[in-house]
Amino acid sequence: MVDSHWTTKLSYTTEDGILIRGYDLIQLIGVVPFPSVLYLLFKGELPDPKIAKLIDALMVASIDHGPGAPSVLAARTAASGGAPLGAAAAAGLLTLNKFHGAAVEDSMEAIQKVYTLSDGQPDKLDQAADAMVAEWRRAGRRIAGFGHRQHKKIDPRLERLFILAKEAEVPGIHLEAARATVRALKRSTGRDLPINIDGATAALLCEIDFPSSLSNALFMVARITGILAHVNEEINQMPPMRRIDPVNHGYDGPPLRDLPTNL
Amino acid sequence: MVDSHWTTKLSYTTEDGILIRGYDLIQLIGVVPFPSVLYLLFKGELPDPKIAKLIDALMVASIDHGPGAPSVLAARTAASGGAPLGAAAAAGLLTLNKFHGAAVEDSMEAIQKVYTLSDGQPDKLDQAADAMVAEWRRAGRRIAGFGHRQHKKIDPRLERLFILAKEAEVPGIHLEAARATVRALKRSTGRDLPINIDGATAALLCEIDFPSSLSNALFMVARITGILAHVNEEINQMPPMRRIDPVNHGYDGPPLRDLPTNL
Amino acid sequence: MVDSHWTTKLSYTTEDGILIRGYDLIQLIGVVPFPSVLYLLFKGELPDPKIAKLIDALMVASIDHGPGAPSVLAARTAASGGAPLGAAAAAGLLTLNKFHGAAVEDSMEAIQKVYTLSDGQPDKLDQAADAMVAEWRRAGRRIAGFGHRQHKKIDPRLERLFILAKEAEVPGIHLEAARATVRALKRSTGRDLPINIDGATAALLCEIDFPSSLSNALFMVARITGILAHVNEEINQMPPMRRIDPVNHGYDGPPLRDLPTNL
Amino acid sequence: MVDSHWTTKLSYTTEDGILIRGYDLIQLIGVVPFPSVLYLLFKGELPDPKIAKLIDALMVASIDHGPGAPSVLAARTAASGGAPLGAAAAAGLLTLNKFHGAAVEDSMEAIQKVYTLSDGQPDKLDQAADAMVAEWRRAGRRIAGFGHRQHKKIDPRLERLFILAKEAEVPGIHLEAARATVRALKRSTGRDLPINIDGATAALLCEIDFPSSLSNALFMVARITGILAHVNEEINQMPPMRRIDPVNHGYDGPPLRDLPTNL
Repeated sequence: MVDSHWTTKLSYTTEDGILIRGYDLIQLIGVVPFPSVLYLLFKGELPDPKIAKLIDALMVASIDHGPGAPSVLAARTAASGGAPLGAAAAAGLLTLNKFHGAAVEDSMEAIQKVYTLSDGQPDKLDQAADAMVAEWRRAGRRIAGFGHRQHKKIDPRLERLFILAKEAEVPGIHLEAARATVRALKRSTGRDLPINIDGATAALLCEIDFPSSLSNALFMVARITGILAHVNEEINQMPPMRRIDPVNHGYDGPPLRDLPTNL
Repeated sequence: MVDSHWTTKLSYTTEDGILIRGYDLIQLIGVVPFPSVLYLLFKGELPDPKIAKLIDALMVASIDHGPGAPSVLAARTAASGGAPLGAAAAAGLLTLNKFHGAAVEDSMEAIQKVYTLSDGQPDKLDQAADAMVAEWRRAGRRIAGFGHRQHKKIDPRLERLFILAKEAEVPGIHLEAARATVRALKRSTGRDLPINIDGATAALLCEIDFPSSLSNALFMVARITGILAHVNEEINQMPPMRRIDPVNHGYDGPPLRDLPTNL
Repeated sequence: MVDSHWTTKLSYTTEDGILIRGYDLIQLIGVVPFPSVLYLLFKGELPDPKIAKLIDALMVASIDHGPGAPSVLAARTAASGGAPLGAAAAAGLLTLNKFHGAAVEDSMEAIQKVYTLSDGQPDKLDQAADAMVAEWRRAGRRIAGFGHRQHKKIDPRLERLFILAKEAEVPGIHLEAARATVRALKRSTGRDLPINIDGATAALLCEIDFPSSLSNALFMVARITGILAHVNEEINQMPPMRRIDPVNHGYDGPPLRDLPTNL
Repeated sequence: MVDSHWTTKLSYTTEDGILIRGYDLIQLIGVVPFPSVLYLLFKGELPDPKIAKLIDALMVASIDHGPGAPSVLAARTAASGGAPLGAAAAAGLLTLNKFHGAAVEDSMEAIQKVYTLSDGQPDKLDQAADAMVAEWRRAGRRIAGFGHRQHKKIDPRLERLFILAKEAEVPGIHLEAARATVRALKRSTGRDLPINIDGATAALLCEIDFPSSLSNALFMVARITGILAHVNEEINQMPPMRRIDPVNHGYDGPPLRDLPTNL
């Protein structure tokens, strides 16, 4: 008979409760914020309190991008055919793929490559970035995280994230590696390809030592929230089988307003 | 030509940025915690600060239940066939269905029915619960959220959540409605069917006026986090096409440990 | 220890080969047509040879409806985000839901109800249809399979299917029950609601005693074929992340042509 | 305004009916068998009648492999959590991935490479196979379609398919290329790695000029049939939330029986 026993390092349910990476789930509830427990599950350890806020910020930055995102359109289309909440959200999740939301992992790889080639020495970053850019271009590989697709102006989320990174006192070397990559891309291609939101997210995830194989997972958890909200609106407010125009849409929610002061 | 223009009340992307229910996403990043932005997207308004912590707690309580949950088994099986992260997680999400994680919405309906029948008056809750139980049993409908399936002892998460609810100063009337339902079930069936984690979650979501059609969505966002962690472990640590035994498994992560003191 | 052994009546793999409902798969290959093996798997017995052709015809009739079907739009949108073949097809499959392709099962139930109420006697069908229509309308239930949504003229597929049914020498009583339902709907609503393709499919599946719980499955197998063809075109011929207009599209394949004569 | 018009070469719905690659769907119904219409959709042309039977045979050969296939286990697990037919089948479809059912496309590539390197000349096939094997092994790439995983004896489906290929009068050069690959693998690795069912399917799809990007699609259409049958059994015959043992199962359907004589 085959021994089919297998083990996990993540979590376990016993008669006494649920263990998450060695912590009793009960002790986490109401004490450790959700994004930090996500980090614990993905990484194996709780984040430093300074870092916790940065993880939360990265999740908020990705929570929703409006009704025109392909993942939202696919999910709303499924809902319009009659799919219930979870099935329609799954259609959206499947759309978060190579060209839509999956750039962060690739971008982390590029930035980590520059970091490694530089031996972690700031004055070698430019040379290392040149080497990485040359190698990836030779291999016909797109260097994700640089160059703006949608925002003509600088994406204001970036500046916000960089401020938070400073407040979190991250070492900053991976951010420098990303900036060195911008310069290397300029030298190599002649084009201005600034860090975009994927590249900024990638650099910050490198800074906090987030596992790159789960960087897309962080994005998926954040974005499925928006997808679910859109599916719920589609199911409850829209006629079934409607033609969902991907461009010709608008917003009739509350107009721009300030944050409440009692946060 | 058909006018295909449509609108959403949720969110919008413009040249100037991303609007979430009227708030500029930039202003939310690093200021409003992720679970509160989820509440904003789902409900339309930011939660009261007292309530924010309770939402976070409910998400942490659902984040992962160990490797034996059907959603995890389905997701790991898909990953074992070669499905990448998102596709395998989608298989898990599809498994979070009628019998697995979807009890909260039904339970909210039962509790809200008791509340409505009582006209919000505490002394009428028992009578209202008797009426609801009689009606639902007549219709052959299961009253979700009561009676323990897995935990023989009282689920310690409940006590924790009730303490947090008290700290959040929720009105408490829906919790009372849930307790009246336990008494009504005892009178009607002769059986002890205590509030379980689904019922407690339902009562608390009623307390904070969470939209019931999105109660399962809250659970999905939380639980897909655990599913993604399990899929990542399967992809990176396990041989492909292995037989995934649903019972014969164990835990070899860190042993039970105390929370760090610097949280 | 729990005995977890379970059994299936469908199929099994042994050292000697694969058993499908008692038949050796080897003996089926190249002898029994695919739609008949589908029937065998779903129903438990091989179809009568007269019936086999009708099942094939029902599958061909559903294989593809062009690029504007919501299932195709959702699948193409997922592919446009970078989802590979199977994941994008899954998004399409999830869209085949309550309002899109799932009418056949409901329609079978209506027709079977008329048949049952008539005790299988042709002269009682009108009375039985009146009773069914009255009961379903009282319950606020839509009677699926009647009334045209898309085709203003009579859908020519119907006539073709009815001819094939005649050639297959089906008893015809369920087709009569469907026609009686049209008359009952006219009496009850005053409106002309002719049998549509879902209703015709339903009536024919009743005629060949196809399990109603798998009528949508027959449709799914057929339609996923078209979905996969569209996904493949999207992946290989279209730019990623394009806006997929649900209405403003056309056809540039071969113009209308006659069937080859050597079939 | 952006011109969002797009076109497809596959199919179109007009007021007059549905066009499939230039043929009127009505004319196909009941005349052209379902697997041939699948070929038409995927390939652009109807198959030669000799070839049609071979396509059907390849689909029957893949329709179901019993309850232990990971795709069936994932789909049954989703159904056990309460997922309806289509959602559970989608979980199964997502499991048909890199390690489970996706070998045919890779195997076609290997065989086509040998064919191309040989300039289509039979006496150069061995040399060409040596070159392909050397190149792929150097690149660390698995040569799919050779070597048996599950069947210790020769898979009897192969012999059946080869006989049908002969009856269909296929040129046979790709089958020879596959056999040359077996010899080259023996020379290169010292191991006996016979053509398996994936390799045989690949060779035959090469023979009939089936588009390799859709070879997995052919398999998906066939296998989702079995998945749907298993999901239906799970939903209707099994208790919810059961532990689905991947090994400890059996068959209680009809015992081995002969094909009826009136086919």
